[in-house]
Amino acid sequence: MNSFVFANPTRLYYGKGQIEQHLSTEVKRHGSKVLLVYGGGSIKRFGLYEKVVHALSEAGIPVFELAGVEPNPRITTVHAGVALCKEHGIDLVLAVGGGSVLDAAKAIAAGACYDGDVWDFYATRRRPEAAIALGTILTHAATGSEMNSGGVITNWETQEKLSSSSPFTFPRFSFCDPENTYSVGREQTVYGIVDMFSHVLEGYFSQTSGTPLQERLCEAVMQTIVEWADVVLEHPDDYAAREAIMYCGTMALNGMITMGMQGDWATHGIEHEVSAYYDIPHGGGLAILFPHWMDAVIDAGPARFAQLAERVFHIAPDGKTERQLGEEGIAAVRAFLARIGAPDRLDHYQIDAQHFADMARHVTRGGPIGKFKPLDAEAVLAILHASL
Amino acid sequence: MNSFVFANPTRLYYGKGQIEQHLSTEVKRHGSKVLLVYGGGSIKRFGLYEKVVHALSEAGIPVFELAGVEPNPRITTVHAGVALCKEHGIDLVLAVGGGSVLDAAKAIAAGACYDGDVWDFYATRRRPEAAIALGTILTHAATGSEMNSGGVITNWETQEKLSSSSPFTFPRFSFCDPENTYSVGREQTVYGIVDMFSHVLEGYFSQTSGTPLQERLCEAVMQTIVEWADVVLEHPDDYAAREAIMYCGTMALNGMITMGMQGDWATHGIEHEVSAYYDIPHGGGLAILFPHWMDAVIDAGPARFAQLAERVFHIAPDGKTERQLGEEGIAAVRAFLARIGAPDRLDHYQIDAQHFADMARHVTRGGPIGKFKPLDAEAVLAILHASL
Repeated sequence: MNSFVFANPTRLYYGKGQIEQHLSTEVKRHGSKVLLVYGGGSIKRFGLYEKVVHALSEAGIPVFELAGVEPNPRITTVHAGVALCKEHGIDLVLAVGGGSVLDAAKAIAAGACYDGDVWDFYATRRRPEAAIALGTILTHAATGSEMNSGGVITNWETQEKLSSSSPFTFPRFSFCDPENTYSVGREQTVYGIVDMFSHVLEGYFSQTSGTPLQERLCEAVMQTIVEWADVVLEHPDDYAAREAIMYCGTMALNGMITMGMQGDWATHGIEHEVSAYYDIPHGGGLAILFPHWMDAVIDAGPARFAQLAERVFHIAPDGKTERQLGEEGIAAVRAFLARIGAPDRLDHYQIDAQHFADMARHVTRGGPIGKFKPLDAEAVLAILHASL
Repeated sequence: MNSFVFANPTRLYYGKGQIEQHLSTEVKRHGSKVLLVYGGGSIKRFGLYEKVVHALSEAGIPVFELAGVEPNPRITTVHAGVALCKEHGIDLVLAVGGGSVLDAAKAIAAGACYDGDVWDFYATRRRPEAAIALGTILTHAATGSEMNSGGVITNWETQEKLSSSSPFTFPRFSFCDPENTYSVGREQTVYGIVDMFSHVLEGYFSQTSGTPLQERLCEAVMQTIVEWADVVLEHPDDYAAREAIMYCGTMALNGMITMGMQGDWATHGIEHEVSAYYDIPHGGGLAILFPHWMDAVIDAGPARFAQLAERVFHIAPDGKTERQLGEEGIAAVRAFLARIGAPDRLDHYQIDAQHFADMARHVTRGGPIGKFKPLDAEAVLAILHASL
């Protein structure tokens, strides 16, 4: 493995009843004035909003609100949140929602401590040097944002969807109650599953040697996702299934399973290009692009693909070459995605090749992308065309 | 899974060269006066002592020393360390050694902020409410003490070996360089492997339902230990092998693989009774007792034993009952322990039945022990006799 430094300061609350029991205390510990950030208002429909407001009022803490955070959250929304924080001296951002809401809240928390435009943290190499405290209440199992320091923001003016992270943007606390994901519809549940599965694959496709435990930890998460995806889709009110999937989402991207391992994030990068033009669901874009990325890079390390086939999908290796077995692994990923009903062609979203050249050029503007097999603009273009 | 709260604040530095690069900064971040705690002096023989002292002098920080911490560290040694801290106003304890040194340092850090006798934290239900900062440099892959808040201390006067933990006794930082374990001899390496393997088993033998990912994470660590134990014993200077085993030790007991899972720590409890009378190596005691504990509790959940057999030891299930497969799992654990040269009878340490009744009574003084299958004094006595 590579030498590494690992630190993850998030205090994680999992399970039923934790919000009622601990939210008020956590809020008081970290803030005296709260900005409550949420999305389209579904949290009002299933009673979470009331529960949170009750806990905040119990804590005797003034609350301001920023509602309406979009899927693929926008820098304009972040700007509005930063302005509220600066105007009212907010010292705790409390995000209630899925990955988009949490990512927006991270940007707001960092922007509140920054004199320039918070977009700098996404568009340039500049990283936050401070942030106000951030807490989260998760309502969608997908991004892992509840226990990591990263986030993705979209700028429609420049047609860019970019990420940022810093040691200051870890949530101080996160509440994950599987019941708060019951109301997530089938399509969004599928996208969440695709997103977390992709996160693990992106860590797993690594050229770092000497990572036997990390590989097995990744395989553990992938196997659990594959086993429970069907259950959660068939029984969306099954607590154990929602819990297993929610927990996989958290573990997929909190850094615990890939310490000292250099992953390959090219697919996420390419998907962000597509979403920045077409505002499609991130998980949908990933489901389409990932298998084609795998086709494109298998030559750079067929052994890892073969290992995926054998250990995650339990495909017998007998008499097959590494390459053959690896290709069966890719086929198994495709079959899994098809089985859960994820889209497999960009055409599904009425996307054509019109902007492909711009996307390929933009995502490789800093040079070839990815570490498992670096891809130049031409290689990215080929993946986009294959995905049509 | 059970509802849970997870927080682990330790900043983990893994790999070659991290001490040279980061120790001085970390020390300055957390302290202004250091107590350096170490064991029998092996760290002087292989150059680590000099490296640490150099970093501390670079940091310009006054250093006091407590040398000679024993395996099965003693409360008398802890008392000496606490006295040094109080006398000199020490604000950072830096432990350089294996689990014993780290556990002693945890007790010292807590004792330095306590007016009473630090033994209270071990012998009673009282827990530390504060501790001075603690940092560690690990030289033996075994206990996981480098990334958890627990520790075990022995009191020879009362013939008790007891544990304690608190949110205040997590190391603030830990440096794990596999090269610092090259000089660990074969026997100690084996004991370390047994200890970490036991930690995973103790989390894994759980009656908590709904823990599919946690079980797989445990299986990932166990499989990696089984695969790499032979390599590290055959090639003690193999960096990749020392690294894999060291990393397994850390992950086995930092809480990351067993969130929301109620384990069974009866075997550790029984072993501590034996060590408290005979001062035998903890790993040696565990290797002897664990298979007999498994024999004694398999009825309470043969499915988990069968799963161990199938997933960790890759034993084919065909045509076997769960119980048969589970028993093959126990046999596989025995075979693994025998293969690496761990002892299998208490007689190996010239221990007879003389104190068994006292041990069984003492370990069950608060009621039956263990959660997978609670054991009363009689059941513990039977395990001890079976281990003779």
